[in-house]
Amino acid sequence: MIGLIRVFTTDSMDVLEQHGRVIIEKYGVHVMSRSIPDQPLGIYDDVTEEIANPKIVELGKSMERDGCKVLVISCAADPAIDALRQSVSIPVIGAGSAASYSALATGLPVGVMGITEEAPAVVSGLLGSRLVKYLRPEGVTNTTDILTPSGREKAIEAAQSLIDQGAKVIQFACTGFSTIGLADVLRNELRISVIDPVEAEGLYASSLYLQTVTDNPIH
Amino acid sequence: MIGLIRVFTTDSMDVLEQHGRVIIEKYGVHVMSRSIPDQPLGIYDDVTEEIANPKIVELGKSMERDGCKVLVISCAADPAIDALRQSVSIPVIGAGSAASYSALATGLPVGVMGITEEAPAVVSGLLGSRLVKYLRPEGVTNTTDILTPSGREKAIEAAQSLIDQGAKVIQFACTGFSTIGLADVLRNELRISVIDPVEAEGLYASSLYLQTVTDNPIH
Repeated sequence: MIGLIRVFTTDSMDVLEQHGRVIIEKYGVHVMSRSIPDQPLGIYDDVTEEIANPKIVELGKSMERDGCKVLVISCAADPAIDALRQSVSIPVIGAGSAASYSALATGLPVGVMGITEEAPAVVSGLLGSRLVKYLRPEGVTNTTDILTPSGREKAIEAAQSLIDQGAKVIQFACTGFSTIGLADVLRNELRISVIDPVEAEGLYASSLYLQTVTDNPIH
Repeated sequence: MIGLIRVFTTDSMDVLEQHGRVIIEKYGVHVMSRSIPDQPLGIYDDVTEEIANPKIVELGKSMERDGCKVLVISCAADPAIDALRQSVSIPVIGAGSAASYSALATGLPVGVMGITEEAPAVVSGLLGSRLVKYLRPEGVTNTTDILTPSGREKAIEAAQSLIDQGAKVIQFACTGFSTIGLADVLRNELRISVIDPVEAEGLYASSLYLQTVTDNPIH
């Protein structure tokens, strides 16, 4: 199966499996989700990323031992991805790089939206000159803000602003936007293509994973 | 629908639609295939690429006029991709860049196989330091060579050699390998992940295309 790493701590199976459910429903593969220990607020600055990095590596190694064939770091900043890739013998997909490569393949100018002040380094680094602009919807600093009617309106406004500045495709730099279904809102309201990091990581992970099970009809 | 451009001339609907059929079967989308005029031998050097480029642009423009929502240049060298992207208002996917971005997303060292002397510039350029090595199977200069038992053996040998040199994923730099089903041969014989350019272009094109038809149950 695919091993999916959430980079925060939760006791709720429902929350833990939010990203995995998107991938299971969209690509029909088995996904096992696990979260790193003792970090309920996840990664929100350099210090918390430093603290999380070795936990992500240890968790990934244990998921390989438990039989996962592909790992996913389900966070748009791709934390600890190089360290984990050096520590396991199976492929590791990151949400940020997966979304960026999907956006690059379209050849279109990319507008990026997230909840942090700046785009994750992996995203701006990979997109390079294809990045039109990064925007945080006004007043939105966490994904629950987007769930309010006003937050939804601000997210649509931010996407429209990116389009007005030349973006032909919108890329999310926040996996939280995936779980609240923002991609479909923008697709329907603005008729714009959206690259969703959870969909993108699932695309690559399932494509690799299904190659490991060609002899097995049950994935 | 998706408009798929073959960069050679054929009167055979069966040959014309080889790549489109792979995409239809794998992703469940409509694909219309067309080939450029007066070039039965396709692109095999700089001169023939120069001659083909304006035909690819004109064909793409006509397919946009005929209602295509996404275009695919189904050749691993991505011929005329920049010119076509500047000439139409819909996304243009190239087989070479699509396969390369899919390979990059895995984070794995990439071995590339094709039938030309060197890897297409777009492939080696995008892969950069992730490219372990490019190989042409011994004695193989066109895709029909691979169809013989000896050609098949040489293709497996080439892939094994790339693996021995450190490749953890094999990328094809020739769409002809797709139509003969070489990816599944290598997956089964060598238990290696294979990035097939027709599958990769279909992945991105169908993902973009399906976003344009969210209100329409028939794709």
